[in-house]
Amino acid sequence: MNRLQNMGFPDKAKLLIIHADDAGLSHSENMATIQVLENGFVNSYSIMVPCPWFYEMALFAKNNPQFDYGIHLTLTCEWENYKFGPVLPISEVPSLVDGNGHFYKNRKDLGKNATPEDVRKELHAQIGKALEFGLRPTHIDSHMYSVGADPAFFKIYKDLGRELNLPVLINEQLMQMVGLQPEEHIEEGDFLIDRTYVGEFKYFETGKLGNFYSDILENLSSGINLILIHPAFDDREMKGVTVNHPNFGSEWRQIDLDFFTNAENRSRLQENNIELITWGAIKKAHDNG
Amino acid sequence: MNRLQNMGFPDKAKLLIIHADDAGLSHSENMATIQVLENGFVNSYSIMVPCPWFYEMALFAKNNPQFDYGIHLTLTCEWENYKFGPVLPISEVPSLVDGNGHFYKNRKDLGKNATPEDVRKELHAQIGKALEFGLRPTHIDSHMYSVGADPAFFKIYKDLGRELNLPVLINEQLMQMVGLQPEEHIEEGDFLIDRTYVGEFKYFETGKLGNFYSDILENLSSGINLILIHPAFDDREMKGVTVNHPNFGSEWRQIDLDFFTNAENRSRLQENNIELITWGAIKKAHDNG
Repeated sequence: MNRLQNMGFPDKAKLLIIHADDAGLSHSENMATIQVLENGFVNSYSIMVPCPWFYEMALFAKNNPQFDYGIHLTLTCEWENYKFGPVLPISEVPSLVDGNGHFYKNRKDLGKNATPEDVRKELHAQIGKALEFGLRPTHIDSHMYSVGADPAFFKIYKDLGRELNLPVLINEQLMQMVGLQPEEHIEEGDFLIDRTYVGEFKYFETGKLGNFYSDILENLSSGINLILIHPAFDDREMKGVTVNHPNFGSEWRQIDLDFFTNAENRSRLQENNIELITWGAIKKAHDNG
Repeated sequence: MNRLQNMGFPDKAKLLIIHADDAGLSHSENMATIQVLENGFVNSYSIMVPCPWFYEMALFAKNNPQFDYGIHLTLTCEWENYKFGPVLPISEVPSLVDGNGHFYKNRKDLGKNATPEDVRKELHAQIGKALEFGLRPTHIDSHMYSVGADPAFFKIYKDLGRELNLPVLINEQLMQMVGLQPEEHIEEGDFLIDRTYVGEFKYFETGKLGNFYSDILENLSSGINLILIHPAFDDREMKGVTVNHPNFGSEWRQIDLDFFTNAENRSRLQENNIELITWGAIKKAHDNG
C-alpha cells in the first residue's frame, strides 16, 4: 500500500490544500482571507500571531471553527514602513530584532543574527499566545519559511510540532528554496507534503499568475499537494504595507483573491478530480493510518 | 500687559493651532494626516508611539521637520477589533492592560485599574522610544485625554513636560470633560490653552460637523485656541479600525480630512484675521516672554 492508501484514500487520489498565508497581517488581508474561505475555494489558512491585526483574525477563527487554520510562525517582517516584532519583550529575544526592535526583513539577516535559543523562546511564545487566546490550530507553518534560515531553527520547528501533536509544513521544495538539504534534515517519521506550489515573481510580472494557478489545477499529480496563496485587496492599506515590494505585493494579492473566488476556476477542481483536503483531515487520516 | 502681549503678540490676536491627533494609528490616518499638512491648513499633529503604523509616521516626521509635531501619549485603545498595548513588556506594566494584553477601552477602566507607577513608566517609555528613534517633538498631548483619568496621572503628565522642557496640552475644558477640577489641578506656571474645540457626536450624527468647524473659525476669540481633529479616509482599513464606533469613526474622520483641505474653508482664516500658530512657536514666544 502506498501512503495515500495507508491513510484511507484511493491510491491515485489528487488531494489538495489551498491555503491562505498571512492572516492577521492587516485588515485587508483578513477581509480577503475571510472572502476566499466563505465565498471562494480556499479551505485552510494560517494566522500570524505577532501582527497588528491578529486579534481580529483570532476572533474570526474562534467564532468559525468550521474553517481549518494553523499558526503562521513569524520571525521576519519584509515590509518597508509597516513593522512588527516578537510577541516576547525584545529584551528576552534580542537576537531576533534590528535596532528599532523589529524583525529582520529576510531569512539571511535572521540566520546571521538569531540564536536558536531566542528562536525557540519566541516560537513557543507565539503558539502560547494563540492557545491562551483559545485558538485550536490544526497545523503549524512558517512565514517566508524562515524556520529554514538555519538547521537549528528547523529542528526547533519540527520539535514544536511533536510537542503539540500538530502537523508542521515540511516539504522538499520549500526546504530547497531556503537552502536546507532535504536529505540532511528530513528524519524518519516526518510527515511530508508531496508538492508545494507558490507563485513566483516571473509569473506576476508577466501577467501570468492566473495561468500558473490554472496549470497547477489542470496538471495536478496524485498525492498530497499544497498551494500557498496570499489574498488581500489592492487597497490603500495593502499598498501601504507592500510599498516598494511588488513581490507578494498588493496587486499580486488581489489576483490571488480574484482567482480563488472565481466560479470557473473552482469548477476545475471537479473537472480534474481534485479533492480538497484540510490539514485537520490529513492529521486524522494519518493518525488512523 | 496681557499674556499675548507678554509673548510678543498683539493683545487681541486670534491665535489658532489646528491639530491632527492620532497619527500612527493606521495607514489611513497617516496618509490623511500628511494630506492635511501638505495640502490643507492643519499646522500641527501628534504621533501615537504604541500603534502599529508608528514607524511610517515617525519616518515622515524625521524627514519633514518643517511640520510641528508632538507625542500623543497613549493609555487607551477604544477600538473593537484593532488592538494595541504598551510599548513596555506587559509584565512591567500589568495594571495598564486587559486579559489580552491590550490597553483598556476607556478612561474609566484605566482609572480603575492602572497604578500611577505603571502610568509613569509607560509614558516615559513612549517618549523614550520616540526620542531614541530621533524624533524631536514640539509638545506632548494625550490620546482621549486619558492622562486625566486620575489626578495622579495628570501630575505625571505635567511633570513629564517639565522634565523634557516641552509644553503639554493643559486646558480647562478638556479637564472638565474627563472629570478633573481645573481649580484643583492647575498650578502656577502651568501653560494653558485658552480654548480647545473638539467635535461632538451630536454634530456628526446630524450632519453638522462642518458647520461646527465653520462656526469656530467665524467666531474665534482672541487668545490661544486649539482645534483637535482626526483626519483619515473612510476606507476599508479605517472602517475596520472604527467598526461599531461611529463616534470619531471613519466617516467622521473623512469629514475632518475634507473640511481642512478645502480652499474655501481655508480662506475663512484670513477673512477672520486668524493667525495659525504652532506649538513650537508658542513655546519660543513663551520662553522669550
